[in-house]
Amino acid sequence: MRVVRTPAEVRAELAGAERPLGLVPTMGALHAGHLALIRRARAENATVVASVFVNPLQFGPNEDFERYPRAFDSDVTQLRDAGVDLVYAPDVATMYPPGFTTAVDPGSVGERYEGALRPGHFRGVATVCTKLFATVRPERAYFGAKDAQQVAVLQRVVSDLDIGVELVVLPTVREPDGLALSSRNAYLDPGERAAAPALHRALDAIADAVRSGERDAQRAVARGRVELRPPLREAYLDVVDPRTFAPEAQIGAPALAIGSAWLGTTRLIDNEPIEARA
Amino acid sequence: MRVVRTPAEVRAELAGAERPLGLVPTMGALHAGHLALIRRARAENATVVASVFVNPLQFGPNEDFERYPRAFDSDVTQLRDAGVDLVYAPDVATMYPPGFTTAVDPGSVGERYEGALRPGHFRGVATVCTKLFATVRPERAYFGAKDAQQVAVLQRVVSDLDIGVELVVLPTVREPDGLALSSRNAYLDPGERAAAPALHRALDAIADAVRSGERDAQRAVARGRVELRPPLREAYLDVVDPRTFAPEAQIGAPALAIGSAWLGTTRLIDNEPIEARA
Repeated sequence: MRVVRTPAEVRAELAGAERPLGLVPTMGALHAGHLALIRRARAENATVVASVFVNPLQFGPNEDFERYPRAFDSDVTQLRDAGVDLVYAPDVATMYPPGFTTAVDPGSVGERYEGALRPGHFRGVATVCTKLFATVRPERAYFGAKDAQQVAVLQRVVSDLDIGVELVVLPTVREPDGLALSSRNAYLDPGERAAAPALHRALDAIADAVRSGERDAQRAVARGRVELRPPLREAYLDVVDPRTFAPEAQIGAPALAIGSAWLGTTRLIDNEPIEARA
Repeated sequence: MRVVRTPAEVRAELAGAERPLGLVPTMGALHAGHLALIRRARAENATVVASVFVNPLQFGPNEDFERYPRAFDSDVTQLRDAGVDLVYAPDVATMYPPGFTTAVDPGSVGERYEGALRPGHFRGVATVCTKLFATVRPERAYFGAKDAQQVAVLQRVVSDLDIGVELVVLPTVREPDGLALSSRNAYLDPGERAAAPALHRALDAIADAVRSGERDAQRAVARGRVELRPPLREAYLDVVDPRTFAPEAQIGAPALAIGSAWLGTTRLIDNEPIEARA
């Protein structure tokens, strides 16, 4: 496994690479969720590339870019053990040199929820992924379902810009108590960690309400909201169309329960697919 | 030569195509300037693709999208005669289907001059070219120097998004009296056509002033402005850095004289490189 730092090195390494090629974009600090993506990519492709880049464009000025967990040596070991062929780990000055001004704007799919709480976040995600797709030119790219709005944004961008990559989305990997794996879970103190699974319970309660026949989204959301007790503080809890991230008033198919809650200075996100039977 | 209408057809036609591959993006209504691009692409590449698409995203609501010259059958004949291998001529609904929301925003390079007179124009140019580059994946793409700010925008976007295409820029092709070839010249009535070369004379006068030692941009521009007499009405006349399209107060190298003038309801653009000798 080689580790390279520039688009030119990626192109040189991949000239003549066996196809299909799978890309797993990451911000490092790998957990079992990332490794599930790598395993799937390894199973489905002749060549597997992972990128490791903490993307400053997708962090707001008061967010956790500086303290975001970094574990590059351990990440490289895990990627090698998982059978990755090439790691692309550019530095910030390579990705955004002086004079860089271009942005990829995904439009309305990125405006609500995470987009409202993190202005510019999805422009940053769309821009960096467009760059990664242009550099690596994979047939498939792998993402976790936990970042559901990111997936919706990237499906929109890939389709709109004719990028020609298939996005493969794998189910959220969870701790035994239901907490979705996230590199940011490392920020939680023991008391916060113990309270954290309530976010997933809230989403499950929404999905249960719909399974029991509730079709009014706000009544279903109210059933979930009772789970979000202190120390959790709701950031948002809603039912959306998973492709557009437009809120649904009456729950149809497809639908997705989404939620975010603060624990101290950490904000967690999660989501749960809803099966609305006719 | 094949004519295809969708990204999937382009990919199928180009699978296994001999490399390098050159792309000539056009809006049709081909003139000798386009054919010079095609000839160069044919000379430098094993495979040549031309696109023909009048891009509504780069026209403002009160601009000439509807009446822009269209001559598809004649264009196809000329492209075939020039040795093009594949023509990509998508319709608007293929490029911008319902739900399309993504935009590529080039930033400051596209904000002044044409960008100020045509809000959204360079987002439209950047978006459609990013799509064409993603679909065709050329090693080289060919553009005319007449649209100098478009070239600066696309150099910025290609570099920023790691698109990995070399932009080849060919000199403006002119009528014997100096008028730059443009599909929009067809809009001019005989009196306007007779007056039109004054725009190029104005830019030449700026370049002459600099060759004669003038380094103050506004004094050089004033030397050009005297050429812009009625019926021409100045839209802008300036000296810029050709990479950033920032105005220059003191003329350094590189520098570009740029100008635009109205003739009736038609607005012409042109530019002239400036050689500032030390």
